[in-house]
Amino acid sequence: MHELILRKPDGRALTLYSRRPIPAQIHATAVPGEGGGAAPHLRWHPLRGEWVVYAPQRQERTFLPPPQFNPLRPATDARYPTEVPEGDYDVAVFDNLFPALSAQAPPPPELLVPTASAHGHCEVVVFTRDPASSLGALALDHLALLLEVWGRRTQVLGADPRVKYVLPFENRGAEVGVTLHHPHGQIYAYPFVPPVPARMQALQLEHYARAGEGLLEGLIAGELRESRRMLYQGTEAVAFVPVCARYPYEVWVAPRRPCPGFADLSAAERLDLARALKTTLLKYDGLWQRPFPYVLIWYQAPLDDTARGAYHLHAALSPSYRMPGRLKYLAGTELGAGTFVNDALPEEKARELQAVAVSV
Amino acid sequence: MHELILRKPDGRALTLYSRRPIPAQIHATAVPGEGGGAAPHLRWHPLRGEWVVYAPQRQERTFLPPPQFNPLRPATDARYPTEVPEGDYDVAVFDNLFPALSAQAPPPPELLVPTASAHGHCEVVVFTRDPASSLGALALDHLALLLEVWGRRTQVLGADPRVKYVLPFENRGAEVGVTLHHPHGQIYAYPFVPPVPARMQALQLEHYARAGEGLLEGLIAGELRESRRMLYQGTEAVAFVPVCARYPYEVWVAPRRPCPGFADLSAAERLDLARALKTTLLKYDGLWQRPFPYVLIWYQAPLDDTARGAYHLHAALSPSYRMPGRLKYLAGTELGAGTFVNDALPEEKARELQAVAVSV
Repeated sequence: MHELILRKPDGRALTLYSRRPIPAQIHATAVPGEGGGAAPHLRWHPLRGEWVVYAPQRQERTFLPPPQFNPLRPATDARYPTEVPEGDYDVAVFDNLFPALSAQAPPPPELLVPTASAHGHCEVVVFTRDPASSLGALALDHLALLLEVWGRRTQVLGADPRVKYVLPFENRGAEVGVTLHHPHGQIYAYPFVPPVPARMQALQLEHYARAGEGLLEGLIAGELRESRRMLYQGTEAVAFVPVCARYPYEVWVAPRRPCPGFADLSAAERLDLARALKTTLLKYDGLWQRPFPYVLIWYQAPLDDTARGAYHLHAALSPSYRMPGRLKYLAGTELGAGTFVNDALPEEKARELQAVAVSV
Repeated sequence: MHELILRKPDGRALTLYSRRPIPAQIHATAVPGEGGGAAPHLRWHPLRGEWVVYAPQRQERTFLPPPQFNPLRPATDARYPTEVPEGDYDVAVFDNLFPALSAQAPPPPELLVPTASAHGHCEVVVFTRDPASSLGALALDHLALLLEVWGRRTQVLGADPRVKYVLPFENRGAEVGVTLHHPHGQIYAYPFVPPVPARMQALQLEHYARAGEGLLEGLIAGELRESRRMLYQGTEAVAFVPVCARYPYEVWVAPRRPCPGFADLSAAERLDLARALKTTLLKYDGLWQRPFPYVLIWYQAPLDDTARGAYHLHAALSPSYRMPGRLKYLAGTELGAGTFVNDALPEEKARELQAVAVSV
């Protein structure tokens, strides 16, 4: 993997990645905007025991692109600079212009509840220069490169001693609030281990101490034994509808070996994990012959945790629909109680996805 | 409060409530449908440490009403029976035809992960016979009656020894997935304390043991002292945008006194709590001169917890919009990490709502 580190005119970082050497004469561009005025802060929610991020500057986004203007497409017209430059590279990563977490976050205000600086990082990951592509449409070695990029970013962001957890994710589709359709994801680097990974951490550590193997490792072994919810079984990686899916069409993608994070994957594992992910995404888009909206989350081990064997890198994909045209809404029981009601059996949804033929 | 307990032709319970004696000759009606075939079950999610409810029969809802047919309107045409009868009453409560939790839930299947019976109750609460009304439009004494009904249902459902937590809520608006616009809410009675109330329970018990007062009691005292986020300050109840709001326009409504549940409210407290709630809802609808969609959750003490002083009944209202026409989407950081990013300061949103004049 080749890496070229650049600086945008407004000071934000831009890093390009490629399978080939990257021409050094590329110059970083940026959309005009009021970046840098970021003043996010954290407030403690005492009844839920969690931090809430306040990023009021995000509401005042001054950037209003002309129609059809895509800020994630390589800049080709000097009158309309975009966030990424022209050039021969595969993946671009840059600091979000309106970050919820920022290395420049000011000291927090004093309030009724504890507050803290919203120190951290929010990066945008442009998956490809092609605006008409999608994560699932990328070539396998391009996807494998992206997995390596996620590992590299985890390493770079994790080098900040105040960062405790790095979460790469993709929100796909208007149904989850995405307005830019150029294939891209985001990375949040938090100054704490957020509630969901923290809960997983506690449960994985407890299981590892008791059972001597990873929690997800055991679950994957069970899914492979039962096999009826499997979507992909490669030599190094798997994809399946988990027995405990909270969303209809929920899928988990993971290496077979309990790697704690992206950085621990071998080249062969990256390639097969890319195949598992691509298989899943092509099945999604093939199911109803339309782009399938979802939220994709990558869970890694918390940075400071030394019990690495307890963790198992995996992607959890939560699709927006429960049947054609019918959204899965989160309402009273999901949001208020935290208890999901799934109207579909994982076994049935797995059968539907198994029946979608794809060529990867 | 007067109560009339009836049984629907298909065996489901229907209970009517009124401020006046209820004529005894009312007969319970029911929509035709395949109720009773409920076969929900629970599966344990080992990575999140929570139960997931599977209710596959809900996806096959056979009931397709003719256009304009409202199953929550009092039945006036024998050809189209509805879920509630004609008659002089204020509030109707009946068993959901497609319950996610049911007293008739069968033994669970054996699977890779622990499973359990989805024993419990799902009730529909019809707030009024008037389909054109809304929770906020109800007269104060009608709202106060509804608070008493929620207390009564908590008592009735809590008498089932397998029920551990009772959660009344209202999903309002197409934005949160509601297709029936007749004013109504739901009550879920769970066979466990769900994750969100369980987390609140642990934090409230810890705070109570340490500080000798309720966590919310102290927070309300602080909000009253600061006053800038208050929407309503009555003699018995308050409404405010909490300092740690996760949603723009989030509001909490609570009695001043730390009552653990509805059943502990005095008549004066119910009336003032009704006024606090009505004030909030009228401000919501008045803000943009349109019905304001939200999820309203009532948090009470867990049924089996004897440390009642630690708890403080309150409603948390989570609106769908962050500004006119712009939904607050839950995506990567909210769903994947459990960390909310709020683009608005609670102080600003409180000012907006304070500026909406209402007559309660």
